[in-house]
Amino acid sequence: MLALRVKNKRLAVRDVQRPDADSEALVRVVLSGICNTDLEIARGYAGFNGTIGHEFVGVVEQSSNNKLLNQRVVGEINVGCGKCPLCLSEDPRHCPSRTVLGIVGRDGAHAEFLLLPLENLVAVPEKVIDEHAVFTEPLAAACGIVERTNIKADDRVAVIGDGKLGLMCAQVLALTSPVLLVGKHQTKLRIAQRRGIETTTPKDVASRGREFDVVVEASGSPSGFAMALDLLRPKGRLVLKSTFHDTTEIDAARIVVDEISIIGSRCGRFAPALDLLKKGAIDVDSMISEEYALADGVHAMKRAKAKGILKILLRP
Amino acid sequence: MLALRVKNKRLAVRDVQRPDADSEALVRVVLSGICNTDLEIARGYAGFNGTIGHEFVGVVEQSSNNKLLNQRVVGEINVGCGKCPLCLSEDPRHCPSRTVLGIVGRDGAHAEFLLLPLENLVAVPEKVIDEHAVFTEPLAAACGIVERTNIKADDRVAVIGDGKLGLMCAQVLALTSPVLLVGKHQTKLRIAQRRGIETTTPKDVASRGREFDVVVEASGSPSGFAMALDLLRPKGRLVLKSTFHDTTEIDAARIVVDEISIIGSRCGRFAPALDLLKKGAIDVDSMISEEYALADGVHAMKRAKAKGILKILLRP
Repeated sequence: MLALRVKNKRLAVRDVQRPDADSEALVRVVLSGICNTDLEIARGYAGFNGTIGHEFVGVVEQSSNNKLLNQRVVGEINVGCGKCPLCLSEDPRHCPSRTVLGIVGRDGAHAEFLLLPLENLVAVPEKVIDEHAVFTEPLAAACGIVERTNIKADDRVAVIGDGKLGLMCAQVLALTSPVLLVGKHQTKLRIAQRRGIETTTPKDVASRGREFDVVVEASGSPSGFAMALDLLRPKGRLVLKSTFHDTTEIDAARIVVDEISIIGSRCGRFAPALDLLKKGAIDVDSMISEEYALADGVHAMKRAKAKGILKILLRP
Repeated sequence: MLALRVKNKRLAVRDVQRPDADSEALVRVVLSGICNTDLEIARGYAGFNGTIGHEFVGVVEQSSNNKLLNQRVVGEINVGCGKCPLCLSEDPRHCPSRTVLGIVGRDGAHAEFLLLPLENLVAVPEKVIDEHAVFTEPLAAACGIVERTNIKADDRVAVIGDGKLGLMCAQVLALTSPVLLVGKHQTKLRIAQRRGIETTTPKDVASRGREFDVVVEASGSPSGFAMALDLLRPKGRLVLKSTFHDTTEIDAARIVVDEISIIGSRCGRFAPALDLLKKGAIDVDSMISEEYALADGVHAMKRAKAKGILKILLRP
């Protein structure tokens, strides 16, 4: 089967052996999505070698029981040891010996087939089309913010970054609270505007210092971090969503004096995300920029870095 | 009256006019304590000019009503505008137009007399001696941690830094949870050991990565911040207590991937601190290194920077 693989920072579509279902479920991938994390992994982040990709929708082709057989599924990407306290509390996302689909010790989704434990798979509601279902994982990450901190209806929220993650965070949080999305790209901001979300530019937001109860950093740039601190009121909360590559300089005195909280947020649960997709509550459609055949995966990865591009999909 | 004043980073004891009570209470200072913040202010931090010092115990000599007249008091250091939502919710600590005793726009406690609004003053219980009461403000700051985050009996807590603040944080948290104090100074660590607190050195703690639910950074050094992150389990909480001077480099990806929370904590309420002092629950006595007359304030400030020194007291 074809798979988009990285080895020692070199990216290539290779013909590899189809995996054997064994104790896990074999999923035929229908569509996969390129995430910024894929781009970072291709540059050497996390030292991963193997098939990349962790956003997908597929069909279960082999499984030890019939529960999801031949059904459309999406899959939670963390696979825990099943024995540690975290796994036993049904949250393997922080299991210290976990593997992560296409990120840590486990071949990923930019391939014709992938393996995941049956319990990681979630059936896709019939009315959610493949092109939307493939957003379940990143949308779950956006929904994960509210797992980490309680956001109230009267909290003033700013989201920094108009990339895929920022657009999804803004849309999710706008369902409960007034949101301001800060970004540099008019075409991207327009997606949020069409959902009634107020938008502005980094330059124009400078006058709104200390106005926000919650700021979500989803730009992935060190300047976004500093801006987030500037926008927060005392005792405000800064939600860190994007994994910065390098170390970031922070003004620790500001955090102490104004008693700011910084809250790291990574993966979220799939059920709330699928529910939002089913309701049509989030516009993911406008975020699809281009689609390529898996065989053109290397080119697709280049396109994913281009200016103005949001989501690139791969079809095996 | 005498007052230890800073002007354009120059420190001197000066003879200045005794303040007029007016709408506030006039307090005759009995003892004041030198805090590391005083040392930073003398170096130019916060751009403050005036009488420094914010830790004191004194006696109310003039007041608009008789409530605390001639009584021993300590005083909350933040004075809010009284009109903003924060002040109206009885928490002026983050009022945007607040003054802060000896730190922002208000003469401080290293003086024969000081002014504070009557509502900032709290009577000192009879059995708490002056030399202990003068620790109320910094002890309240240590108690402030539990205002900012809920610490449970089975939370494994590490405190980094064996200075005054670290020793108080360790003792306060050890009242509810198992605490490990990390420091470099055997004489200082011994104060915690005598209260049954486990201690170790930065070198020896390196093997205990990801073991702690809560880590309190009270060393004020950038290396302490990095160590704190290393010691935290996934989803752990880092409480930032010390105001770093400069910007600090942080590994933001670690915060996101492991979903760490960073919680800034500054001032605390006085009532819990006075209660602990009354019960003798905290050993502040061992933290008194030297006492000087206010007239020798400049020399006392030099001594406060010396190696092995903990609290220096000034007596007007």
